[in-house]
Amino acid sequence: MDKQQNILIIGAGLCGSLLALRLGQRGYNVTVMEMRPDLRKVDISAGRSINLAFSDRGNKAMKLVGIEEKVNALCIPMNGRMLHDKEGNTMLSNYSGRDHEYINSISRGGLNALLLDEAEKHENVKIFFNRKCKSVNFDKTAALFKDYTTNTEFKEDADVIFATDGAGSAMRNSYYLGKKFLFSFSQDYLTHGYKELSILPTETGDYKTYKNALHIWPRGDFMLIALPNLDGSFTVTLFLSFKEGKYNFNNLTTPEIVTEFFQEEFQDALALMPNLVNDFFENPTAALGTVKCSPWHYQGNTLLMGDAAHAIVPFYGQGMNASFEDVVEFDAVLDQHDGDWETVFKVYEATRKKDTDAIADLAIDNFHEMKNHVANPIFQEKRKLEMALEKNFPNEYSSKYSLVTFNETIGYREAMLRGRAQDKAILNLLAENALNLAGDLKSILDKVKKETEAILEDDRIAGLK
Amino acid sequence: MDKQQNILIIGAGLCGSLLALRLGQRGYNVTVMEMRPDLRKVDISAGRSINLAFSDRGNKAMKLVGIEEKVNALCIPMNGRMLHDKEGNTMLSNYSGRDHEYINSISRGGLNALLLDEAEKHENVKIFFNRKCKSVNFDKTAALFKDYTTNTEFKEDADVIFATDGAGSAMRNSYYLGKKFLFSFSQDYLTHGYKELSILPTETGDYKTYKNALHIWPRGDFMLIALPNLDGSFTVTLFLSFKEGKYNFNNLTTPEIVTEFFQEEFQDALALMPNLVNDFFENPTAALGTVKCSPWHYQGNTLLMGDAAHAIVPFYGQGMNASFEDVVEFDAVLDQHDGDWETVFKVYEATRKKDTDAIADLAIDNFHEMKNHVANPIFQEKRKLEMALEKNFPNEYSSKYSLVTFNETIGYREAMLRGRAQDKAILNLLAENALNLAGDLKSILDKVKKETEAILEDDRIAGLK
Repeated sequence: MDKQQNILIIGAGLCGSLLALRLGQRGYNVTVMEMRPDLRKVDISAGRSINLAFSDRGNKAMKLVGIEEKVNALCIPMNGRMLHDKEGNTMLSNYSGRDHEYINSISRGGLNALLLDEAEKHENVKIFFNRKCKSVNFDKTAALFKDYTTNTEFKEDADVIFATDGAGSAMRNSYYLGKKFLFSFSQDYLTHGYKELSILPTETGDYKTYKNALHIWPRGDFMLIALPNLDGSFTVTLFLSFKEGKYNFNNLTTPEIVTEFFQEEFQDALALMPNLVNDFFENPTAALGTVKCSPWHYQGNTLLMGDAAHAIVPFYGQGMNASFEDVVEFDAVLDQHDGDWETVFKVYEATRKKDTDAIADLAIDNFHEMKNHVANPIFQEKRKLEMALEKNFPNEYSSKYSLVTFNETIGYREAMLRGRAQDKAILNLLAENALNLAGDLKSILDKVKKETEAILEDDRIAGLK
Repeated sequence: MDKQQNILIIGAGLCGSLLALRLGQRGYNVTVMEMRPDLRKVDISAGRSINLAFSDRGNKAMKLVGIEEKVNALCIPMNGRMLHDKEGNTMLSNYSGRDHEYINSISRGGLNALLLDEAEKHENVKIFFNRKCKSVNFDKTAALFKDYTTNTEFKEDADVIFATDGAGSAMRNSYYLGKKFLFSFSQDYLTHGYKELSILPTETGDYKTYKNALHIWPRGDFMLIALPNLDGSFTVTLFLSFKEGKYNFNNLTTPEIVTEFFQEEFQDALALMPNLVNDFFENPTAALGTVKCSPWHYQGNTLLMGDAAHAIVPFYGQGMNASFEDVVEFDAVLDQHDGDWETVFKVYEATRKKDTDAIADLAIDNFHEMKNHVANPIFQEKRKLEMALEKNFPNEYSSKYSLVTFNETIGYREAMLRGRAQDKAILNLLAENALNLAGDLKSILDKVKKETEAILEDDRIAGLK
């Protein structure tokens, strides 16, 4: 087929720069337009998701483009959740009973810079910054941009346009406002927002608390989390209601109230955060939303990918991983149907959307689980049992979390259905005292498996998904 | 409190005119703006949902405003579904085992005209037509209108604005585009659309087929339905995919193909529809969408009600009934908090939204059930059993359909949760041959109830909704 086709990618974030790299490797003429300045030259983090969770699904994409080792050098392994109670007691809860299964903390900026560098190694890939997409004429496969450096507008034509311009995608907005086809669309906000804070390194550059964990201070209606950075600091995120509860983003308006709140709820964290008040009032408070839509493509002209197609809340640590997996899935469809963009787009959406819908729902479930259930006794009992099952039967049992995070050969939807049925099976068996926890682990495994299958079968008969 | 407050209602459809009537009865100064001409003077049906299903939840509202008997005169009872197979065989499947439980076919225009007449009897209610709302400034409680008769624009201020302007609500659009608050919003289209057709009366004005039923021709991937009108005609609706399958709206482009399709699939209906081809090409093809959003209100200034807040697909026959029930629920909250609009709006949304979300989901379930399961043996077995349970234990058993349609004292959400658990219980018991259908009915009832409770309990323990 004709590899001299011109491909326009809107957005050079994590998904866009990976896509540019991959399509560059495949030989297409790729032009990328990014609205922000080049993050390799200007610091543009501005207090929003400085680091991210990187795990197996994302790593599939790094293998595909051949940069697994370079990315590995940016990673800090997190073996589990370190739970902090109000008294400052901590408990480490591993993500998996298998030692080789863990997630990583990675710098958004560092990873994005690497992907941009790798993409630009291909002379058929050109990346332009400070050019913001205003709208897309999907009928004509053309996009309108504003060039911030010259303050002028210009139109860019292409054979195909990919929009990887994030949760606020300009192209998705053009789909919505255009009313040229039936466009199903949803944006759903949580009642909670978030704010980024920090635990700075010690004077000697060391970590002030345990490095290899995702720290959580679960408090039922709200929570604090912290992820390590390579420089010895932690990026801390407060998830809190905008309006409800004794303390909320609307009433945390003075240094005194903010300090009082942390003293009451997160005393051990506060001790590590002398910079709390400054961070709190410097950094923005941001909303947490889920975006779903369909169709992602318009004929064979345009396609939404990454957050532009499916923005999710951050609680499963899968946002970036899902976007990277998009590129892997898309690449596989391209292998089958290269040369026929409409078929590529249609097949890609048909196979992929069920999985991105599933991870969106799982991420919301995990919001409630993280701030609440992780501190709940029956949840902890389930978790302990699942750790034991994974440790003793590494090839026979994976928890929902493991299915989603470490079993990258199955899709999110399959992981969700099986994982939810397992959770329900174990919680019900525990509630009925039907498991002899002091007894033989193999018979517990068999009981859990049998009950899980029964739940899945009952749902199948009732026609439930 | 000050009843001299000025209330602006946008839209004089079924919900808006009922709301105007009720607020008029309560003594408010009510101004209603409707974009269409007065339907009492001009025929504006134009081939879209000429008749509707009216049932107990809608009737609650008619009782509230004291026009139950007048509405009853417009009703044609439908005792059940009359199923038509491909060979033209018919089977009547009642909606309930209790004889006094049935739904009604009612003319949208006739009912709307009655509500407008009743509202206008109150001198504190003024209704203006041909005035289309373009946008709402919810901060200032003011709306911009275009007057189609003078072709000019004007602004209308009020103390409170209610938008009952339907699925394409201008005020909801202002919420969305305004970006002044976090507005969760979804529009979801089915792959299927609909087109209205008709079975005209005989030359002597009689019904050409059985009057007191909702006729269904279920065909798996598509279906035809028919509801009776007072003039001896039936309004027929074809639900069909836009793009998929051998026949679809995109390829039914000639009289020959349309006739061939009906000959193959709906031969007995075709025999009653000599006007098919004319209807088919005269009437529009329309989309089927679900709209959900939140918040419905902006402070104490503005509130969305009816389809503007929650548009649903028509397959449970509950669209109008849900909108009428909105007014009943709103009226009850007004009794508690009259004088404090912000509290009224907040409490109303908090109590009502869970129920309108539920009926939206139930309506989509019923789309699949009507075109598919009603022709499915295990579904028919369940239906027969439920009829027997309702007949023999009228105070102890109600099917999901009865809970939703005839148990107007419980909300849609409770009806959904209990009804789905019952369906799952019966389908699983039937599949496991755990019910002795030839045996004692009371023991079957006990088994179904026990299994239903077990399902609900398992879901509660697993933290599922």
